[in-house]
Amino acid sequence: MQLGLSVSDSDVSSFTPLVVLELADDTKAEAITWLLNRIRDKQQNGGAELLVNQLLFPAQDDQKPNPNVFVVGSTLQRLLNGAEDVGLFKEFQDGTMRGFTYANRESFKDFNEGFLSDAECQYIIKHELDTLRAKNEEHVPGYPKLKLYPGKSVVRRLQSKGVLIQYFPLHNKEDLKRLSFSWYKKFKLSLQPLDDIRHYFGEGLALYFGFLEYFTFALVPMALIGIPYYLFDWEDYDKYVLFAVFNLVWSTVFLEVWKRCSATLAYGWGTLSRKKAFEEPRAGFHGALGFNPVTGREEPVYPSSKRQLRIYLVSVPFVLLCLYLSFYVMMVYFDMEFWAINIYNENPDIATSILLFVPSIIYAVVIEIMNLLYRFAAEFLTDWENHRLESSFQNHLVLKVLVFNFVNCFASLFYIAFVMQDMVLLRQSLATLLITSQILNQVMEAFLPYWLQRRRNKKVHKRMRRLMGDKELPLLGQVQLETEMNTYLGTFDDYLEQFLLFGYVSLFSCVYPLAAVLVVLNNITEVYSDAFKMCHVFKRPFSEPAMNIGVWQLAFETMSIIAVVTNCALIGLSPQVKAYFPESDTQLILIVVAIEHVLLAFKFILAFVIPDVPKHIQVNLAKLEFDSLEALKKREYKTKKEAGSEDQT
Amino acid sequence: MQLGLSVSDSDVSSFTPLVVLELADDTKAEAITWLLNRIRDKQQNGGAELLVNQLLFPAQDDQKPNPNVFVVGSTLQRLLNGAEDVGLFKEFQDGTMRGFTYANRESFKDFNEGFLSDAECQYIIKHELDTLRAKNEEHVPGYPKLKLYPGKSVVRRLQSKGVLIQYFPLHNKEDLKRLSFSWYKKFKLSLQPLDDIRHYFGEGLALYFGFLEYFTFALVPMALIGIPYYLFDWEDYDKYVLFAVFNLVWSTVFLEVWKRCSATLAYGWGTLSRKKAFEEPRAGFHGALGFNPVTGREEPVYPSSKRQLRIYLVSVPFVLLCLYLSFYVMMVYFDMEFWAINIYNENPDIATSILLFVPSIIYAVVIEIMNLLYRFAAEFLTDWENHRLESSFQNHLVLKVLVFNFVNCFASLFYIAFVMQDMVLLRQSLATLLITSQILNQVMEAFLPYWLQRRRNKKVHKRMRRLMGDKELPLLGQVQLETEMNTYLGTFDDYLEQFLLFGYVSLFSCVYPLAAVLVVLNNITEVYSDAFKMCHVFKRPFSEPAMNIGVWQLAFETMSIIAVVTNCALIGLSPQVKAYFPESDTQLILIVVAIEHVLLAFKFILAFVIPDVPKHIQVNLAKLEFDSLEALKKREYKTKKEAGSEDQT
Repeated sequence: MQLGLSVSDSDVSSFTPLVVLELADDTKAEAITWLLNRIRDKQQNGGAELLVNQLLFPAQDDQKPNPNVFVVGSTLQRLLNGAEDVGLFKEFQDGTMRGFTYANRESFKDFNEGFLSDAECQYIIKHELDTLRAKNEEHVPGYPKLKLYPGKSVVRRLQSKGVLIQYFPLHNKEDLKRLSFSWYKKFKLSLQPLDDIRHYFGEGLALYFGFLEYFTFALVPMALIGIPYYLFDWEDYDKYVLFAVFNLVWSTVFLEVWKRCSATLAYGWGTLSRKKAFEEPRAGFHGALGFNPVTGREEPVYPSSKRQLRIYLVSVPFVLLCLYLSFYVMMVYFDMEFWAINIYNENPDIATSILLFVPSIIYAVVIEIMNLLYRFAAEFLTDWENHRLESSFQNHLVLKVLVFNFVNCFASLFYIAFVMQDMVLLRQSLATLLITSQILNQVMEAFLPYWLQRRRNKKVHKRMRRLMGDKELPLLGQVQLETEMNTYLGTFDDYLEQFLLFGYVSLFSCVYPLAAVLVVLNNITEVYSDAFKMCHVFKRPFSEPAMNIGVWQLAFETMSIIAVVTNCALIGLSPQVKAYFPESDTQLILIVVAIEHVLLAFKFILAFVIPDVPKHIQVNLAKLEFDSLEALKKREYKTKKEAGSEDQT
Repeated sequence: MQLGLSVSDSDVSSFTPLVVLELADDTKAEAITWLLNRIRDKQQNGGAELLVNQLLFPAQDDQKPNPNVFVVGSTLQRLLNGAEDVGLFKEFQDGTMRGFTYANRESFKDFNEGFLSDAECQYIIKHELDTLRAKNEEHVPGYPKLKLYPGKSVVRRLQSKGVLIQYFPLHNKEDLKRLSFSWYKKFKLSLQPLDDIRHYFGEGLALYFGFLEYFTFALVPMALIGIPYYLFDWEDYDKYVLFAVFNLVWSTVFLEVWKRCSATLAYGWGTLSRKKAFEEPRAGFHGALGFNPVTGREEPVYPSSKRQLRIYLVSVPFVLLCLYLSFYVMMVYFDMEFWAINIYNENPDIATSILLFVPSIIYAVVIEIMNLLYRFAAEFLTDWENHRLESSFQNHLVLKVLVFNFVNCFASLFYIAFVMQDMVLLRQSLATLLITSQILNQVMEAFLPYWLQRRRNKKVHKRMRRLMGDKELPLLGQVQLETEMNTYLGTFDDYLEQFLLFGYVSLFSCVYPLAAVLVVLNNITEVYSDAFKMCHVFKRPFSEPAMNIGVWQLAFETMSIIAVVTNCALIGLSPQVKAYFPESDTQLILIVVAIEHVLLAFKFILAFVIPDVPKHIQVNLAKLEFDSLEALKKREYKTKKEAGSEDQT
């Protein structure tokens, strides 16, 4: 079966393949013909007007790979129109960022050379594929059960029913080589090439790496103070007050400054003032056919009351149950801890002193396993809640995961600090938890996928050699390799890891000043391993326009509020401070509470007073708005005048 | 001197006068001629294209009134164009609120009968007058010192230099009669006619009255619980815990629900989704001529660093000094209080028991006087800080006034409650402060202005009769009367009063349950006196589009957070609760603090979870946005197609 022009490496020059579509290998021929026609059809007929071709393998044997693999490309003209559709912001001749319009194309900087990056082209193609809508078809040809209705996204329907297995953007080998060299291959003392990362992977990922870098640098002062603290005051448990005060200030300033950095980055990338497009329903969203109250179109509707029922009657009890389980495990850990201490006290030698650390290590591993299992359960549950929009799905998922991870990781530390009030155990427990989880994370996140990927690569190479002999077929080989790669599931897990590290540092690091040092070291390797996994372990992800780190800003801010409370309480518990109030605990507590309230109030005032967007960017944004208002006025005036002159004639 | 057509009562039919302009009586003739020409000139020549005429008095004597009074009106066509300029939202045929455009005028509901209310017309005329800009004039003709530059608002310049004394909208006697009847003249058990108020006075004022009504109704349950509490537990100081818990919940729910009510009102009035227009500099703003970085136009620029210096080196120390003074006065009050108690204890009879209340009453009067004096000082200082925008001026003024008023009114109560821990004195002090300030407020706010106004009216009537004999000249008389009326300075003082009442009720009412009853009674009379003063004491104000109560929402929310802290502390201090922890204060304090933290967290989560805008209005807003996006797409598609067909020919 051959549909239209085929792209083998001999005629790849017909267009640059940007996106790969993989359909199930038993897809019916009529469905394929229909889909390709719809993709190729002109826009005024409701098509996507893109270029698409099947990948054909020269030799065919029994172990042949899936034949239904297609590559998609586009003409420049179509891409420019698409750039306007998706509301892309590009640099204007005067240096400001403006929404691209085809009519003004010549006024944009560098319009004639490499105007759209690969990532942008791929994002535009994804948008056009996603918004390819059914017309009057009642179902997908050849699949009477794959119902369609006017306006339904064809790609989402095929995806939700498993006919479309995946679609992903292709790597650009040249660019990738250049990027990975400047990013992590040369040993250097320079910052990450954020603009290049954004150019290749899009704004969402570049913001994550920007945040990672910022967070690491922000920790350096704390680490620098921590080392002498650790070296000279290690056995002097009383002297952590100063460090707690430093923590307090640091965790507040840190987030306020990041907001401004993030705004500066997002402005430079043109996502700060970009308007959110109308959000499509998720691929997995289902419901009875009804009318969308906003668009007035027919589409599946799922009553919000049913979803609320599922959330409050199933999800919330499940989360509570998991929290209970986590507490139970914590209690088991404490039992183990006491058992180990007892053995050590009975017979103090090297073997038993090592045994002291065993319960903490086991507990740390169990915590990681529970987090992982819960993560899957949360994803399943949130999917089952049937949210209409991806953003709402994400918010509910993040909330579920955050609450559990927070309790699971920090409950034991809170218990040790405030119920047992045992600062020695707190220090030991914190150190073990932190180090174990860092090691586990690096293994799970980078080395394991890398090892799996290498095995897979070898297999694919072998198969390719068998299939094609010694012919040089770079495109076919690349598509085969990348189809088998793991899919990068977004920045969720990466942010989550940073969130927990931030928690360890801001909540309790005053009793274990080395925590900041450990986190800095972890994050330096994290940059390299994350960079490596993005470039070589995972499929290239579609670029995701982002104007800030979204819900994570809120999560980090909540953590920093909790950090104020915790640090104040730790200060109140310190023998150093207690010495000032020898006779009355009451007075000490009242003073600590009063100071805490003042600090919290100050934090809120600070967040309110410091503008989230730096002044010069505010001016630029205001200027843009003013210009567009003026242009609108002029156009309206012109229209009116024309209407007036028509009236007179 | 007579410029153009004169409007006396004989030819008033030439146009409906809507706005009155009063120039200084020694204004030079050439300046007047120039101004009137600019107002009358066509829009394409940069004029306002409005109708304007001088008011002429038939008889002239020595005691003649200011001759430079002008009335302004407009053609319907001009008003409709202006409605589009100011971005007015009106009801569309399908019941939604949409931005008015002249092109679609026929699709709006009731377009052909009374489409624009008087208040809207006057608002449009104000906008057109305010945006009447200087062209190439270097100064106002006849006033070489009144410098102008291209783009400067002519009216603002004239106003800041005192040539334009005032401009204000005229009352509409028919509408006013109808409104005041349905508002406060008939004794009835119905709500205020908010839609009519909005129709006559605009959205800003209607929202204030809506808030006043909502606040009063919200207090009714508290008042109903308060009466039996007061009657049966008056001498039982221990039993306020339940009431404090009720206060806690009430003050949180109250504000969340109001946000939704306010959004509903604002949506119905078309201000919810209305975009803010580009803000003009304040009339009093001055600085060296420079370039506005946003518009690129030449205009006065005042460096932000200088303003910061003025704020931090003068305003902040001044506010701190005032706060110190307020504390000093408080200490004097406590001395007086002890002196009175001593006298009573030495010789307890009726005279000395009355004497017990004297210090509180004196203190309450002093507080009111200090608030008033500080108010003037704050206005002067904020003006001197030379803010460029009215909104920034208002924010700084509100902040200054709120901080001082809060401390001045509540510091003594906090001191009595938490330092002296004397609940009997707290109750007595609260009652005296509340009652005295209510009485003073009603007198200052309504009766005094009314009495002054009546005296002034009589004088004007006498003068009019002397001037015109028995001729019936309703317009001339009306303008003369209204020119002399006081100007309503906005809702600031009204909101401030409600803010302080909210403070009395939410902070300490658990120890004096009658507070809510007093506030309800006060607010019922407040509705009547405020309504009366708006209709008969003050000049009609220009309508002010408002989508919410603005900075006051924040102020009330801050107060409700403070209320949580205060009520928790009062609960912790109550003997009832203390009885549960007979041996250890420490445990009690820790539990109270923990509960307080949970409540505060719960409050923030609640504010986050409850949507500020009700669901059905969200859907309507999304629908509007979707429609406008679709319309834009269609238009762009059409433009492209036309461009395409041109290319082909």
